[in-house]
Amino acid sequence: MRIARVRGTVVSTYKEPSLQGVKFLVLQYMDEAGQPMADHEVAADMVGAGVDEWVLVSRGSQARHVRDCGDRPVDAAVIAIIDTVTIENRSVYRK
Amino acid sequence: MRIARVRGTVVSTYKEPSLQGVKFLVLQYMDEAGQPMADHEVAADMVGAGVDEWVLVSRGSQARHVRDCGDRPVDAAVIAIIDTVTIENRSVYRK
Amino acid sequence: MRIARVRGTVVSTYKEPSLQGVKFLVLQYMDEAGQPMADHEVAADMVGAGVDEWVLVSRGSQARHVRDCGDRPVDAAVIAIIDTVTIENRSVYRK
Amino acid sequence: MRIARVRGTVVSTYKEPSLQGVKFLVLQYMDEAGQPMADHEVAADMVGAGVDEWVLVSRGSQARHVRDCGDRPVDAAVIAIIDTVTIENRSVYRK
Amino acid sequence: MRIARVRGTVVSTYKEPSLQGVKFLVLQYMDEAGQPMADHEVAADMVGAGVDEWVLVSRGSQARHVRDCGDRPVDAAVIAIIDTVTIENRSVYRK
Repeated sequence: MRIARVRGTVVSTYKEPSLQGVKFLVLQYMDEAGQPMADHEVAADMVGAGVDEWVLVSRGSQARHVRDCGDRPVDAAVIAIIDTVTIENRSVYRK
Repeated sequence: MRIARVRGTVVSTYKEPSLQGVKFLVLQYMDEAGQPMADHEVAADMVGAGVDEWVLVSRGSQARHVRDCGDRPVDAAVIAIIDTVTIENRSVYRK
Repeated sequence: MRIARVRGTVVSTYKEPSLQGVKFLVLQYMDEAGQPMADHEVAADMVGAGVDEWVLVSRGSQARHVRDCGDRPVDAAVIAIIDTVTIENRSVYRK
Repeated sequence: MRIARVRGTVVSTYKEPSLQGVKFLVLQYMDEAGQPMADHEVAADMVGAGVDEWVLVSRGSQARHVRDCGDRPVDAAVIAIIDTVTIENRSVYRK
Repeated sequence: MRIARVRGTVVSTYKEPSLQGVKFLVLQYMDEAGQPMADHEVAADMVGAGVDEWVLVSRGSQARHVRDCGDRPVDAAVIAIIDTVTIENRSVYRK
């Protein structure tokens, strides 16, 4: 999984029928020092994450095991809202 | 998923039989500021996207859940035409 | 999928039994301007592509949907020989 | 698989229900000379690895074959605690 | 697939039970000119490759089609020992 921060949203009217009702979040990956990285991801949100929250993102076909993602062509999903990230006993992030 | 802009097309006569009728789009990935990135992708188009439109691309085996992609050797598919991308309440793209 | 040019071949006598009869091509990825990129791939060839031809490569588990690849440990396959690549009405490649 | 060193943990209260009880480790990838690399990963820990230990990480849908990971949306798992890494008869790491 | 050279081994006592008996090789990826690249991989060896031999590596869930890898959490496997690599009629490697 990767650590990411929620930055915004993508809205689409015309899409695969199975994607009706799926919320798409724009995520920015964070490095382990808590700094934003250059690359980003758009992920299906099933846990109700909000802008600026840190989340865990799961990618690839395993994303299908998120509730209701099974038969959808979704290759990334937010699977958890992060409370804390601790690196060698140092707190990098606290919600 | 990744955000990309439709740039062009790839045409092939001699191909896997299961790919008959599949339209291949050349996509350029966009960063979250709306700037084009260096890498690109060729994806199966099942939603009728046109040149210059922004789309969502799903990659890997989950692309098989796009209508009619099930048994085809397609590792990337356009799954939605984007209406808007919003980053921290700022509009990055509007169709 | 990615656009690549066929550069050469890999020959192996001692291999997984299921790979008997599979031809391995060395491919060089091309950028959308038609310039060669640094990274390369070795892919199973099921369409009979020859050196210098441009092809479409599908990677990951979807490569299994290429004829006869189903139960083989192949993570990349040539799925089409490209006739033309067109970027914003400009021809980048013509066979 | 990739070689990584355990750096810390991620804690989450609000997550996919199937993730209850899964421990998330922050891992830093190591190069073959034993030096830390820039990229990191968050992986499910099923083998009880501790901070500073070197581990093997398996990514993608194969991670599901780790005990109890089958139906969870986990795209990376610690599959082994490393005893030794030997490169051309030179010991790079010894636990 | 990728071309790699066998550099060494990883030994682990404490690991997923399904990994008993699997030999892990440290591989260094090679570019098409036969020069070593920066990134490496740890792969399950099912073909008996030795140090300094060039091999083909298959990654992702397709690695499961290697004999005896089916239910193991292995995301990379050595599938062939390379005899020759030929690029545009020039021999890059000969065993």
